[in-house]
This record gives sequence, C-alpha cells and structure tokens, in this order.
Amino acid sequence: MSAESEAERGPEADLDEIRGLMRALPGPDAGSAEKARAREAQLTKPAGALGRLEALAEWAAAWQGRHPAKLDRPRVAVFAANHGIAARGVSAYPPEVTAQMVANFQRGGAAVNQLCLAHDAELRVYEMALDHPTNDFTAEPAMGEADVATALAYGMMAVEEGVDLLCLGEMGIGNSTSAAALAHALFGGTAEDWTGPGTGVAGEALAAKVKAVADGVARHGAEIADPFDALRRLGGLELAAIAGAVVAARMGRVPVILDGYAATVAASVLYAVDETALDHCLVAHRSAEPGHSRLMERLGKRPLLDLDMRLGEGSGAALALGIVKSAVLCHAGMATFEEAAVSGPAD
Amino acid sequence: MSAESEAERGPEADLDEIRGLMRALPGPDAGSAEKARAREAQLTKPAGALGRLEALAEWAAAWQGRHPAKLDRPRVAVFAANHGIAARGVSAYPPEVTAQMVANFQRGGAAVNQLCLAHDAELRVYEMALDHPTNDFTAEPAMGEADVATALAYGMMAVEEGVDLLCLGEMGIGNSTSAAALAHALFGGTAEDWTGPGTGVAGEALAAKVKAVADGVARHGAEIADPFDALRRLGGLELAAIAGAVVAARMGRVPVILDGYAATVAASVLYAVDETALDHCLVAHRSAEPGHSRLMERLGKRPLLDLDMRLGEGSGAALALGIVKSAVLCHAGMATFEEAAVSGPAD
Repeated sequence: MSAESEAERGPEADLDEIRGLMRALPGPDAGSAEKARAREAQLTKPAGALGRLEALAEWAAAWQGRHPAKLDRPRVAVFAANHGIAARGVSAYPPEVTAQMVANFQRGGAAVNQLCLAHDAELRVYEMALDHPTNDFTAEPAMGEADVATALAYGMMAVEEGVDLLCLGEMGIGNSTSAAALAHALFGGTAEDWTGPGTGVAGEALAAKVKAVADGVARHGAEIADPFDALRRLGGLELAAIAGAVVAARMGRVPVILDGYAATVAASVLYAVDETALDHCLVAHRSAEPGHSRLMERLGKRPLLDLDMRLGEGSGAALALGIVKSAVLCHAGMATFEEAAVSGPAD
Repeated sequence: MSAESEAERGPEADLDEIRGLMRALPGPDAGSAEKARAREAQLTKPAGALGRLEALAEWAAAWQGRHPAKLDRPRVAVFAANHGIAARGVSAYPPEVTAQMVANFQRGGAAVNQLCLAHDAELRVYEMALDHPTNDFTAEPAMGEADVATALAYGMMAVEEGVDLLCLGEMGIGNSTSAAALAHALFGGTAEDWTGPGTGVAGEALAAKVKAVADGVARHGAEIADPFDALRRLGGLELAAIAGAVVAARMGRVPVILDGYAATVAASVLYAVDETALDHCLVAHRSAEPGHSRLMERLGKRPLLDLDMRLGEGSGAALALGIVKSAVLCHAGMATFEEAAVSGPAD
C-alpha cells in the first residue's frame, strides 16, 4: 500500500471493518430496474432483439439506483503490486516489469491507455508499495492482517464521488500464481485446475507454478479462518485492493466491470463470504487463462466478451465498457414505437 | 433499387459483370500483414496477450493494404427492401414497418443510430423501392435478372472513396424468410435448419415460415443455375445489394463487418461461388437466429460478439466496429518494449 494510505489508516487496521460491511450490502434498486424494463418494452425493436444489451441497461439502472442509468464518468482503476512468489520462477517476466509497466501506464504506452481513449474512460493507476513485495506464500502468509486490511481500504478509495462505473484491473508479476492459489483455497479442486500460463509460462516453469500453488494451499489450508484470511495468506496487495473496491462500489451504488482472471479471483473472495456480493459486477471477458472459465462457472457469471485476451491491466474491462456504454445509449436514446409511429407486432 | 440507379445502369443489366469480378478478387496484402506482425511482437505486452485484437489489427492492415490500418471513416450501410413472401404471414410485423423503420433511421431513433454515435461511424440508409416488393418466391422467382443485377450494382455504390471500413446491415420485413430459403438452397440441409423466429414468430407463424422456405426451395431447386441465380430466385433487393457491397469492398480494399443472419446469408452467395470471397469479412456477432451459427460453421467464421442480439439493421456490426477500432488503436498507439524501457521475458 502507499505510504499515505498506511499513515491514514494506521497500523492497527484490521479486517473487522470489511467483515462488517459484508453484512450490510445493499441490493439492487427494484424501482429503477422496473422503469428500465417498462421503457425497454416501448423502444422501436422487437422485444428482446437487443439481447444482452437490454439486460445491461437494466443492470446499470438497478445498481446505480437511477433510471435511466448514466455513464458520464466511468473509471478504469488498475492496482499494481509485487509478489514474493515471483522469486520461485513462476512468471515469464522479472518482477521489475511491474514498476516498468506502471511507468508505461503513466506515459500512455500500454494497451489499457488506448482502450481508455477508445471508450472515453478515466484511467487511474494505483501503485502499491512496489518495492515491498508480499511474502512468499509457500513459506509464510503473504501478508499480515494490518497489511491486507489497509490494502482493502486503499482499494475502497477508488470509488470517488462522481465515478458512475468502475472497471477493475491489476498489474503484478507473479499475481496469476497468487490468484490461482487463492482460487484453489476458496473453491477446492486441484492446483492444476486453477493454474495456467499467465504471461506465457510452459514446461518446467508451468510445473514450478503449479507446485507453488499446491505448496501454498498445503501450507495454509488447514489454518485458513475465512475467505479474507485466505486473501491475507495467499493473495496480494492489488488483489485485496480490488476486493475492497468491489465492496465500496456496492455501498456507493457504482456498477463494476471485473477484468480477467486475477481481478475475478480477487472479487470472488467476497462471493465466498456472500453469494450475492458480486451481483453488481459483470465479468468483462473470458480470459484465455483456463482457470477463469472454471471460476466464472462457479460464480454463475457469463462474460461479455470472448476474445482470447489474457493481458490483465484492466484491458478487457475497458473494452467491455464500450459494450455497456452502447447498451446504456441505446436504452436512453432510442425512440419509442409511439414517438416514431412504427407499427407494433401484427397481433 | 432506386430510380437513379436503374436509370444509370439501364434495364439491360445482367449478372455477367459480377460473375466477372468474382474471377478477379484481389487477395490480402502480404506486406502490410507482415509489418503488422512485426510491430505487434514489439508492443508492451506478452506475445498474444491481446488475443483476437492482435489478429484484427493484422486483418485490417492486410485488407486495407496499408500499415498501420486506419479507421478514419467507417461506414454503416443499411439496405432496406420489401418482400412478397411477407404476405404469407412469416413475420410478426406488417410490411409497412420497413418504411417506418427507414424513417426512424433517418430521424435518429433506432438502435443503429445510437450505436453509430457510440462508435463514431457514418450511417447510410439505402432505401430500395419499398413500394415494389419482390415476388412471392414460393410462386415465381423473387426477381428478374435485371432487377438482381441492378441491386448488386446499387450495393456496390456504398463503397465510396474514403470509406475505410464497411459495416453491412439490412432492414426488410420478411427477409429472414428469404435469407433462410437462400441458405437452404445454397448449403442444403432442411428448411427447419435455416428457419428461426426472426422478429419473434412462434407456433403457427413459425410453421408457415418453415413451409414457405421449404416450398420456395422445392419450387426453384432443380432450376437454380448458380449461386447468383439462387439469389435472384429466393433473395431480395437488400440481400443482393449486400452481396454487391461485399464484392466492391474487396475490389476497393475496404474490410467488411457483416451484421447478423440475413447479412451473412447475403454474403454467403459469394462464398458459394468462391470460398475465399469472404476473407476480407468479419462476422460481427452470433445472432440469436439459430441458422446463423450453422451458417458461420459452414463459412468457417467465428463471430466477434455473442450477445443474443437479433435485431439486424446493422446493429451488431456497429457494435463490433467498437472492437475493431480498439484493436487498431492498440496496435498503432501502444509503446514498444524499447520505447517504454520495459524488460522482455526473462529467458
């Protein structure tokens, strides 16, 4: 976490705040959803012909708590952190790439910069103590309780006043290993089920990655007290921040688009606590990382896009934002049958 | 077809012009494709991590014949026409809806208007003799040879100088019946295989639709001389125009995005003549119309989107344009590893 946030929250931060919020998650706004359905039925198209775009317009209204939904200030928040597990040769890239890519985001050179330009989204990059990676989770817990609580709180700050949709992504060499271990601990199965090539490992490096995931879960499994404790033991600062941002968005009536595998695993910590906790979240795309499909099936989520992407950094979420914006525009801007003097169905 | 185009082409138009063009289709520009692959390998992301976006950037360069590809003037062309087969109760909507929806497009009230706004595309609506529907193809050929040739030529005019990507869509009450009959004639199977709910028919109306498709193919099947003759006998003016636009785009180095079922069937006439004829075309989305999936399998096409849409009017193509624009932007605008001083893979 940044020095500022650590100072703000104090070292005594613990997980009780987030556990408390999880008991008070607001639901969708049924009135706004109903208004969306009523308008949708009057628009100049056969009922249902815009498919998921219709559901998206209703979803945005229900979770913003207003009809029509508006997307005046969508934000793409990318959380970046480093991982002790990277020392075990689990990534194709060295750990310094995390900081180099953060610099690239800041200069506008990454894919997510172009995708934010394309879809008129505000990009915020949250650098989380890149010089202080988490511990190697095969040897000890990745984080102490104060660290994970502070990271959760830091992530919550991405939900600033005025932001009306939040896309969540991450950057962190080693984090697909951390995400795989976390998913394995939360949802069972085998280490192989949740571990994929990430940035592109294969052969011995992939075997080392699977072993790190298996070793981590074997090391901590019996001691894991609850999903937040799994996050502390096996997760990372950026994954905790994403979980915090998802909760804050729910409290603040901000719909969320989760990017790929690591971001969805981070959010799934909340699902493991409360199966309704991600109802305000879409999954942007089906990542090429095989564990992502398995996880979405577990979460009951159908992604918006399926384009073989596996970059992270919020890229899939920024791309999916274009679909959601289109849905909201159609819903708000189309004429009704009456306005356009178009005949309805013959019977 | 419009009065202008008929006057221009003269009543003696025949299908020899398009048959001639089909023997001279240019291929992709290998040099531009190679430049795209070379640049892609240097961009700040793991190789392949942008998935299909990488392939799209190469596709656009190869078919525009320039690197990097540019999308300064994408056009959505919607061809509208009426169908004699509509009199057989095959649609949920009366035929006058075609003209009403054209008026709605012109006033900006339809879904495609909003989607063109969202993705900064130019919308052109081509009204094709709405007061003169084609003949009922269960009784006689839908069109004479001069009509279909003129409609093909009319469609070719959508490829104006400066247009650098063409999205093709249609509007025409009854045209999913015409499209189903055409697909059945071109690709075999049964009438049921290719006939779906269209604007939303079910029960007796769906049975009438299947029967119209079966009757049409039974009436003409043995006499069909070639795919263009199938188009003449079973197709429609807007379907012929789309086929013409696809050919003209190929000749003019303009990549194409096909919308849904009817537009893809129209283009598939060319595939039936030459299996490489649609290599410059993407299919925008998997329509909810069941025959569309069957057809894409036959054409070897994987759609960009799968959002349960089934509206037509170019809506899926305009939405998919957002993905293609994003791909082209990423390719052109991202930094290289060298520019960004980001380390490559460890080995």
